[in-house]
Amino acid sequence: SGLVLVKNPHLDLMEEDVLYHLDLGTKTHNLPAMFGDIKFVCVGGSPKRMRAFAQFMQRELGLAGAGEDVADICAGSDRYAMYRAGPVLSISHGMGIPSISIMLHELIKLLHHAKCRDVTIIRIGTSGGLGIKAGSVVITDTAVDSSFQPRFEQVVLGDVVVRSTELDKDLAEELLACSRDIPDFPTLIGHTLCTYDFYEGQGRLDGALCSFSSEKKLEYLRRAYEAGVRNIEMESTAFAALCGLCGLKGESCHFHLL
Amino acid sequence: SGLVLVKNPHLDLMEEDVLYHLDLGTKTHNLPAMFGDIKFVCVGGSPKRMRAFAQFMQRELGLAGAGEDVADICAGSDRYAMYRAGPVLSISHGMGIPSISIMLHELIKLLHHAKCRDVTIIRIGTSGGLGIKAGSVVITDTAVDSSFQPRFEQVVLGDVVVRSTELDKDLAEELLACSRDIPDFPTLIGHTLCTYDFYEGQGRLDGALCSFSSEKKLEYLRRAYEAGVRNIEMESTAFAALCGLCGLKGESCHFHLL
Repeated sequence: SGLVLVKNPHLDLMEEDVLYHLDLGTKTHNLPAMFGDIKFVCVGGSPKRMRAFAQFMQRELGLAGAGEDVADICAGSDRYAMYRAGPVLSISHGMGIPSISIMLHELIKLLHHAKCRDVTIIRIGTSGGLGIKAGSVVITDTAVDSSFQPRFEQVVLGDVVVRSTELDKDLAEELLACSRDIPDFPTLIGHTLCTYDFYEGQGRLDGALCSFSSEKKLEYLRRAYEAGVRNIEMESTAFAALCGLCGLKGESCHFHLL
Repeated sequence: SGLVLVKNPHLDLMEEDVLYHLDLGTKTHNLPAMFGDIKFVCVGGSPKRMRAFAQFMQRELGLAGAGEDVADICAGSDRYAMYRAGPVLSISHGMGIPSISIMLHELIKLLHHAKCRDVTIIRIGTSGGLGIKAGSVVITDTAVDSSFQPRFEQVVLGDVVVRSTELDKDLAEELLACSRDIPDFPTLIGHTLCTYDFYEGQGRLDGALCSFSSEKKLEYLRRAYEAGVRNIEMESTAFAALCGLCGLKGESCHFHLL
């Protein structure tokens, strides 16, 4: 049916669903009228970047109001920022798995309540590249954890639930094909390593509060590369696991800055 | 000596330390001049709340400019917000362990570079209470993980490093004593349970994307209460572990909303 799957039967029995961190709700807002025609959701860490992306989409799609400022739909909350440009929603998720996980929970319930159909969700973020040219874009086929396994471990009431972190292969190929139409746009498909920390998790000698040898770091990164990892960031496993859980067509594209 | 300990000898050999997510650095800013006299750092999730707290401190301390707006020291970054009121720094950390962990890394290096002495750091946030009156404040003696253990597991280059999550007992008692001077200010000392997720991790039947029985939830919360847990939030174990690692006097106080 193309609808979003929400595997919690309790949800539809509730009189009201308050999406606290988005400052939206089923009683306070007409979610089907506001969001029913959304077809694409793009998410990224920084609120300013997601506003700039919405403005870019307005221009690209030739929408009325292009070039003007866009309104933050979640202005009543300072947790996340949300903008729309036609059928495209652009939302910030902050940094790290817990932060994106809260946003995705509320976003997926929003899409469910709004009865959206055939929604594609794409994470667009920055990442650290591994053995690739600076300025490359990595399209994730599979997100992996710090042991390079394609899994996300979610603790539910003290029990560990393991979820798959494979992303939509057809969508990955489709995005790769798009990149070929643009000159000088180095793009590749690879695994993405997801860590719980920017400094110690990723072994940044120049930033961590603890110390470790550069030999150990090189050995770890070599093993990661051999396992198929081409970039490192902090949200992809939770993103892939939640898209898979709810039947959302999802992809994760990262721009390797340096 | 009262200085902050940074156990990475590599740090002092670097020509420049860029604190990316705070938009500060050792070459671009005179950190000792800007921050050398800081004695207290208060951290919390929401940027707006931390601005309001800085304004409150300005009034309480009778500082010049009280009642006026305060400037965001990290205005060039949209990751965190930072304000100061005399010797008090007020900083937002977003939601979840990875987000607070990035901020604390850069904050602790800032205090190190600025040669601050005898700094006390307090997390002030909201949390869900467990068997306590709404409106109560919980002062954390020990932060515990989802198995109710006083530990924080940090993955460093694929290896798990286990750190203690005990907080400063004297500071906890001192804060408790302060609360007694204020009428109708229910305050207690207890363990704080730290989860990686707001919905599934804390078993919110009304919000999670997966389902579980309310019996299972009640049984888990009962076990938590018996283990000494009085509230649940999402940052305390990482906060306690990093304070302990760097010799910072730290405490975590949470207001139980509902």
